[in-house]
Amino acid sequence: MAISERLTSLARVRMPWSATSRLMPTTKATPSASSNRVNSMEGVRVVHVSDRTFLMHLGGKIEVKSKIPIRTRDDLSMAYTPGVARVCMAIAEDPAKAWNLTIKRNTIAVVSDGSAVLGLGNIGPFAAMPVMEGKCMLFKEFGGIDAFPICLDTQDPEAIIETVARIAPAFGGINLEDISAPRCFVVEDALRERIDIPVFHDDQHGTAIVVLAALTNALRVVDKSIDSVRIVMLGAGAAGVACAKIMLAAGVRDIVLCDREGAIYRGRREGMNAFKEQIAHETNPNGLRGDVNDLLAGADVFVGVSGPGLIRPSAVATMAKDAIVFAMANPTPEVMPEEIRDYARIIATGRSDYPNQINNLLAFPGVMRGALDCQARFVNEAMKMAAARAIAAVVSDAELGEEYIIPSVFNRRIAPEVAEAVKAAAYETGVARRGRPTSEDEESLATLVGAI
Amino acid sequence: MAISERLTSLARVRMPWSATSRLMPTTKATPSASSNRVNSMEGVRVVHVSDRTFLMHLGGKIEVKSKIPIRTRDDLSMAYTPGVARVCMAIAEDPAKAWNLTIKRNTIAVVSDGSAVLGLGNIGPFAAMPVMEGKCMLFKEFGGIDAFPICLDTQDPEAIIETVARIAPAFGGINLEDISAPRCFVVEDALRERIDIPVFHDDQHGTAIVVLAALTNALRVVDKSIDSVRIVMLGAGAAGVACAKIMLAAGVRDIVLCDREGAIYRGRREGMNAFKEQIAHETNPNGLRGDVNDLLAGADVFVGVSGPGLIRPSAVATMAKDAIVFAMANPTPEVMPEEIRDYARIIATGRSDYPNQINNLLAFPGVMRGALDCQARFVNEAMKMAAARAIAAVVSDAELGEEYIIPSVFNRRIAPEVAEAVKAAAYETGVARRGRPTSEDEESLATLVGAI
Repeated sequence: MAISERLTSLARVRMPWSATSRLMPTTKATPSASSNRVNSMEGVRVVHVSDRTFLMHLGGKIEVKSKIPIRTRDDLSMAYTPGVARVCMAIAEDPAKAWNLTIKRNTIAVVSDGSAVLGLGNIGPFAAMPVMEGKCMLFKEFGGIDAFPICLDTQDPEAIIETVARIAPAFGGINLEDISAPRCFVVEDALRERIDIPVFHDDQHGTAIVVLAALTNALRVVDKSIDSVRIVMLGAGAAGVACAKIMLAAGVRDIVLCDREGAIYRGRREGMNAFKEQIAHETNPNGLRGDVNDLLAGADVFVGVSGPGLIRPSAVATMAKDAIVFAMANPTPEVMPEEIRDYARIIATGRSDYPNQINNLLAFPGVMRGALDCQARFVNEAMKMAAARAIAAVVSDAELGEEYIIPSVFNRRIAPEVAEAVKAAAYETGVARRGRPTSEDEESLATLVGAI
Repeated sequence: MAISERLTSLARVRMPWSATSRLMPTTKATPSASSNRVNSMEGVRVVHVSDRTFLMHLGGKIEVKSKIPIRTRDDLSMAYTPGVARVCMAIAEDPAKAWNLTIKRNTIAVVSDGSAVLGLGNIGPFAAMPVMEGKCMLFKEFGGIDAFPICLDTQDPEAIIETVARIAPAFGGINLEDISAPRCFVVEDALRERIDIPVFHDDQHGTAIVVLAALTNALRVVDKSIDSVRIVMLGAGAAGVACAKIMLAAGVRDIVLCDREGAIYRGRREGMNAFKEQIAHETNPNGLRGDVNDLLAGADVFVGVSGPGLIRPSAVATMAKDAIVFAMANPTPEVMPEEIRDYARIIATGRSDYPNQINNLLAFPGVMRGALDCQARFVNEAMKMAAARAIAAVVSDAELGEEYIIPSVFNRRIAPEVAEAVKAAAYETGVARRGRPTSEDEESLATLVGAI
């Protein structure tokens, strides 16, 4: 049959004129490519294209469920009126009880304004929803956290700050997501001042944590110390600025951060903002200028959080011995791994089809789990560093190698170990609100719950 | 043992000094009463009191769940990157697709500022959470709707309006809850203008719908027509104003609405606001003045949504033959049913321990279900009237009687029938966004989903 010749794997094709449908081959290409090929046939018009990914999204990917059913008047009188009134009054007398008697202690908001979604750019709040729902799924699957997507119909930083602060009472934490730089810095800083629950911008801090974990292990492999390496970075958006900051905090002394105008240095005029100004004062100790490709000569590490194909393989060839390249632009890296195999000893990307995938899924579920478990007021630098160390430590000396500097996202040990490390750091630095649970507390709660 | 003598039913009592606990009797009184009785004993101090209701609330009553697990890279690549990008782009090209490809079509926000929670008053957003979580449970249990609680850290109407409008993209509807009058009217009116999804203030419209259903059936019992009765109401808050409006829309010609200053009439000066002014022009055709108890003389119906004990049994005695009394203040009605058995033929309250419980749980799940199913832009008067008719119609002529004018909240037929009626009215009045589904559409979707 004519249509099937244009298709190469199986799909259901419905014939509107006969009100029946039949299984037919489809191409392995994207649905739109298949659809174009079929559409180009005389007398055939593609009315609607769907596939497994779209079908998975029908009606959305998450739901809100009751933990207990309401089947009888007795259930109703405890979960709702009149019983609930006593619970309300207990919280009215002591608002801290909201941490025990409401969803707050396990619930976060995943907040976006849709301004910088994945690599798709400013697609707005409606189109951002599938990503935010997906993020909520990941928080649940890997961190056991109840996360709800809030996509905002505004991109004004003041409005975002006000809105998030006002909806905060239900939540134990806020995960900011896919908000473009430099607005994301303003929003995060203001919210940290305004509300007393952790505000975590995953694009910044999740990425930074995993990059530091990967760098730590890459340096273990090449046996260089973090305070002796020269690092060149490309990309001064949310992720780039946060990566530079965490690496400085971890002891790196020589970082040059570049953007499309070249190296950021003290006194640069073009394409600056307050956050780049700050970076200019903390990095580039030798005041280097020029294009990132030229600056790579002699560098030990390249970290890219920018765009596809911006680094020349020949530039990587000029890097120091045992060069480390993290080319994290997604889906197309700054430079393809196969083009630099001869020049770089360790290569990592954001992709799952190459070794060493740098994916912030390694960080965010565990970080937020740890923060919620101790009712942290912030996620501070100590907690982020602890998370990075915990991720790096999952890779044993025996496992460590050029193609295994970072564990798989499906390694279920990671989130609990990150959570423990984050929690310990929160207690040490005094940002935990909840007292350290004693063994007697645990026994008490178990007894109480068991008795009823 | 001394402690057990002060208690009369079973509870677990933990002895901190011995780090053990044992089952012991407790009183049937409230936990605080029990605790006071034990506390009054020499050498005994109550450290902590809990009970089934509090234990049910530990950690909150709802959770967010993924509809599909993420166990493999394949799952991850469809629910999240890279697959999700195509879904995002489809919505970016046509935002209306958010109704199909995100949680929007089955998800609402339950929004409160904590200013008028149950009968507890202005207890704020943290203390309001248990009620809003309970409401979300009811939406799920009775309407199959995913509802999420948003408790706002502001009571400024402008701020509430801005905030709700900004978080609206994720949602297919907004249920306003426990926001005090007259602010609730301002908020609802402004939001109806601002956003294109239904904004339903349950305290107003849910109550009004159920009151109209109960009134319809009560009039069936006493065989009076709705356009001939004289109705006296007490309470001009959210519920009172909405009840008056729906009764006017249903054909009632003579309503006198009273508040603590007495009857509301044209030209009254004391305790007025813009909404009472409007009511003054639409009700009280004879310009009556004075106290509600005096105005009851000769009235056919009393509707109270006010406070405990405000109506004298002797005033009910002056009402017309076959008097109908809806005394809905909760938990203590305006007048106790046992005090007016001889004077009123039909008595309804808000309580589950008397016959004829007027509970807006009869309305809100079905109303929102119907509105979501046709993607309504508003909940308009026709939809509310249809809901009231549907609830009333569930009581057959054979079942109808003085003690059965309204069905049980656990009658599972109600929500689907209300939803159908609301949806039909939405299509008739042109507020449905979704085309009427044809049988071929249903077949198409079933085929598509079944094929994959």
